[in-house]
Amino acid sequence: MKKRPKHIPEETIRRLSLYLRTLRFMEKSGVQVISSERLTRHLHVTGAQARKDLTYFGSFGQPGVGYNIHRLRTKIEGILGLDRKWNVILVGCGKLGTALLAYPGFRRFGFKITAAFDNNPAKVGRVIGGLTVLPNREMEDFIRKNSVKVAIVTVPAEAAQEIARRLVRGGVSAILNFAPRYLSIPENIRIKSVDMAMELESLVYYLKNQ
Amino acid sequence: MKKRPKHIPEETIRRLSLYLRTLRFMEKSGVQVISSERLTRHLHVTGAQARKDLTYFGSFGQPGVGYNIHRLRTKIEGILGLDRKWNVILVGCGKLGTALLAYPGFRRFGFKITAAFDNNPAKVGRVIGGLTVLPNREMEDFIRKNSVKVAIVTVPAEAAQEIARRLVRGGVSAILNFAPRYLSIPENIRIKSVDMAMELESLVYYLKNQ
Repeated sequence: MKKRPKHIPEETIRRLSLYLRTLRFMEKSGVQVISSERLTRHLHVTGAQARKDLTYFGSFGQPGVGYNIHRLRTKIEGILGLDRKWNVILVGCGKLGTALLAYPGFRRFGFKITAAFDNNPAKVGRVIGGLTVLPNREMEDFIRKNSVKVAIVTVPAEAAQEIARRLVRGGVSAILNFAPRYLSIPENIRIKSVDMAMELESLVYYLKNQ
Repeated sequence: MKKRPKHIPEETIRRLSLYLRTLRFMEKSGVQVISSERLTRHLHVTGAQARKDLTYFGSFGQPGVGYNIHRLRTKIEGILGLDRKWNVILVGCGKLGTALLAYPGFRRFGFKITAAFDNNPAKVGRVIGGLTVLPNREMEDFIRKNSVKVAIVTVPAEAAQEIARRLVRGGVSAILNFAPRYLSIPENIRIKSVDMAMELESLVYYLKNQ
């Protein structure tokens, strides 16, 4: 398990997160063993795909029996790096930023937002979601002093590129971007853009083609 | 182009939305032609993958020249069903719901939120994002009268399953779910769950394995 194959498809990683959700839900419900078919039901993924995804990381299941839920859940958390805590900063305390600061899901899954930034003097100093909003100019310093690797960007589209550049310069290597625009960043930085309209787009495609 | 192959991978559809973002950005910048390599740069997708994705829907590009940006953009919009307007309702006017009601991206891309619902009497009647919040009990009626097919769910996790059930009963066939829990829905209903923590999870996997 130490030696990890280099090219694990991005979609496999994404699906691991999905499986993890189902496993947590099932574990809470008291279920102990799950088949790959049950694991993937409602996920628009086949059981065969799940089995294939999991073989990238070793062998987990028992043919004809299924997966031990607790064991598989712990394993996937380890694979994804969720067996440790991650400090995260958030830039842009508008409506969406404020909503995310109050979002209970992050902490539940091992992420802690440790600082929130905004360039609006009216917002700086205010307490949102238990954090005192800091001015953007302190961003790079904070990242360096706290070895922050992950940032959430919720600034308006027109400010996002400049913020991304500064985050990277400060030392951030993964960005979760909510600004609805394309961001140019160095190849070695991971970025994930959550585009609410895009999520709707891929839904309506199926409505159109039903 | 009329006859469409049945099994287009979900990820192809998702990538079309991504290409569309880049195409719109490029078109606005005045660029007219784009190579598949340029189209996919920063998307963690190869040019070959993009060419493969696009061949599902016909032949667009010119080998050695590239794609006409305006033509490809219009084509993808047609494929995704974005050449028409979609009415969308939102259920749950908490922090995230309120943020989404104010989100300008939906309308820009052809989605119009036509009603917002909440079960909190203190919220019903308030105007958020230009809409008067309606009580949940009017939901099914509204869906039927307005043939609403798409709903955004931003209620708390514990309320989400019941809301999803009622939306489906009313006639909704696609749900964009922000509640951080697994929803059981009929197989013929499309659901897409946006789970902020999940997005972070797939980012930190790459940090851990860098």
